[in-house]
Amino acid sequence: MQEFHDKHMRRAIALARKGLGDTYPNPPVGAVVVKDGVIIGSGYHAKAGSPHAEVNALLSCEGKTHGADLYVTLEPCSTEGRTGPCTDAIVAHGIKRVFVGAMDPSDENGSYARGHLEKKGIEITFGICREECEDLIAPFHMRVTHRRPWITLKTAVSLDGRIACHNGHSRWITGEESRRSVHEIRETVDAILVGENTFLKDDPRLTARSLDKTLKVPLRIVLFTGEKIPETKNLVTDHPEKTLFVTSKSILTDELKRRGVQEWVTPFSYISDGEAFFDAFMKELYLRDICHLLVEGGSETYKSFMDHDLVDEICMYIAPKIIGSGPFWLSSMSHNISTVEESLKLKKVSWTKLGDDFFMQGKLFKGDRACSRD
Amino acid sequence: MQEFHDKHMRRAIALARKGLGDTYPNPPVGAVVVKDGVIIGSGYHAKAGSPHAEVNALLSCEGKTHGADLYVTLEPCSTEGRTGPCTDAIVAHGIKRVFVGAMDPSDENGSYARGHLEKKGIEITFGICREECEDLIAPFHMRVTHRRPWITLKTAVSLDGRIACHNGHSRWITGEESRRSVHEIRETVDAILVGENTFLKDDPRLTARSLDKTLKVPLRIVLFTGEKIPETKNLVTDHPEKTLFVTSKSILTDELKRRGVQEWVTPFSYISDGEAFFDAFMKELYLRDICHLLVEGGSETYKSFMDHDLVDEICMYIAPKIIGSGPFWLSSMSHNISTVEESLKLKKVSWTKLGDDFFMQGKLFKGDRACSRD
Repeated sequence: MQEFHDKHMRRAIALARKGLGDTYPNPPVGAVVVKDGVIIGSGYHAKAGSPHAEVNALLSCEGKTHGADLYVTLEPCSTEGRTGPCTDAIVAHGIKRVFVGAMDPSDENGSYARGHLEKKGIEITFGICREECEDLIAPFHMRVTHRRPWITLKTAVSLDGRIACHNGHSRWITGEESRRSVHEIRETVDAILVGENTFLKDDPRLTARSLDKTLKVPLRIVLFTGEKIPETKNLVTDHPEKTLFVTSKSILTDELKRRGVQEWVTPFSYISDGEAFFDAFMKELYLRDICHLLVEGGSETYKSFMDHDLVDEICMYIAPKIIGSGPFWLSSMSHNISTVEESLKLKKVSWTKLGDDFFMQGKLFKGDRACSRD
Repeated sequence: MQEFHDKHMRRAIALARKGLGDTYPNPPVGAVVVKDGVIIGSGYHAKAGSPHAEVNALLSCEGKTHGADLYVTLEPCSTEGRTGPCTDAIVAHGIKRVFVGAMDPSDENGSYARGHLEKKGIEITFGICREECEDLIAPFHMRVTHRRPWITLKTAVSLDGRIACHNGHSRWITGEESRRSVHEIRETVDAILVGENTFLKDDPRLTARSLDKTLKVPLRIVLFTGEKIPETKNLVTDHPEKTLFVTSKSILTDELKRRGVQEWVTPFSYISDGEAFFDAFMKELYLRDICHLLVEGGSETYKSFMDHDLVDEICMYIAPKIIGSGPFWLSSMSHNISTVEESLKLKKVSWTKLGDDFFMQGKLFKGDRACSRD
């Protein structure tokens, strides 16, 4: 029986993934409706303001929902939001049992669904494929519990841990398969951040250019301490309205303003006021509805995020080559780790072969103090 | 048919592996005798001076070899060594066909077997499972073509490429499975080398302590620049006769001499006369019949071997943790690599999951200039 429930929930998870990166500030959610052992309808949440997954799934059944079961990756909402409460829709459609993956971590909804549904005689079961369903909403979870985005650090390194040669040359450390994988990750995030050096030297585009999908342009953020933004860089020529410079004084030229380039000016210096800067910055990202931030380097930027405990997940592409000099992906952190036991550990680590490279993905936690997701 | 040949050669390869680390200065070799499609005998070379694999295999057949086929991982010798030429034994046993994996790279034997055998009407076919058979004799190949050992660099690193904390603490970066794997590698080598810091700080044993095998003690080599060797370190208390200090002046105390500790005094400084030192050192290892050297660190030692193009293979254990400061496994090399294309590349890379860690093994080559094995 568990296997049966898991199968349907996995289908709901796969549907939820379709919304990854598009639903912010809402979580991605998937749902399927099952009657007499057969899936009769399904849906997912595609975008904030559009119908929730449950409603899409119920509507797709064309009136045949009476007595059916609903599988949904996240606890259904029971409050009035931009769309009506899902619990009402579930009741109205005559659903008999509801199977839920993860609990809703937000205060307004937290386990209210049970009360609403049981009062109407609808059985509700929590925790089907719980771990996968929780992973799916990690950014949303971080948002509602810590009021900051879930932060993924992505790096591509040689075997000796370098992200470039001594002169900055870094194209391409990893192979084609790895670079394709990066675009797939970019598709699932709301914003991508780079440091000033990466912006100036690598001139990246920071868009998601998967082969089989349309171009996606997340918000591109540059931590900038300079006086002048070169006006020919890709980030300010292509989709300039999706580029945000974080600076300590206003530096946008009229031309850049005309193009729609954004800036967020903060009184704190990213370099000298680390903690105050990052507190304000995280608040700003929260207000801008950024749920999932991808940090793409370089070395100094990685160090700052690591130093301020602002890395939740690491995606690392390792190429079987040795560069021998040049910047390490992570130069010395300020944390004083004196024994290997105190080192920052990753868990739920997965390793995947991508062409000649290896890809590691894992969630970060420190000693006994697990990251907020655990 | 090829499948049939490959199957028997793979059996011969598996037998050859039993001799890995024990046959020096001879290569490990395995052989099987097949008659009417069935293996009727097998053997391997266990130790220099003892019978060759072919002879062991032929003798194991108890007189039934007439008209049989012989599969042998390496071209049979046709010259008088410490044991008689194998070609003679093959003829004497009435073998009809000989299937060979790798050619003998040494001058005296190079393809002479064909002449000897064909003259007697015995068919000889080369190149069955060629690549695997060549891999098996990589150290022997290096010895006869470059008069130095095959050198494997082994390191255990965190995700940020560190081999210890800032204070030198390094136990244990990797998990139990990885440490067990190290012992399996040590079993296959003739000598293990460490630098002075590793000897002094880590106080290693550098023995092969596999669970299911007897203790093996390879020659343990320490590059030592100090004045005084602490007499309580494991390398000079346990199996001291298997420990060699490489120094620029004689420093063994009477006590250490009494225990049988060895030293090799060279006029060259390992630090300041890099090239001259390593030339002399490689010659010394050749004369001592060291075919396969394992370099186990630390950072400075790795750098020296890398700088002098003396690494043929890298074995790297990667633990999913971040130490954040402390020595990188490979600090800046002296090679001036300015573009990623010029980086040192590994090939025949394999990745294996070992508990929470990942294990990478690959052979090193540089751009177009392949390492001597290719």
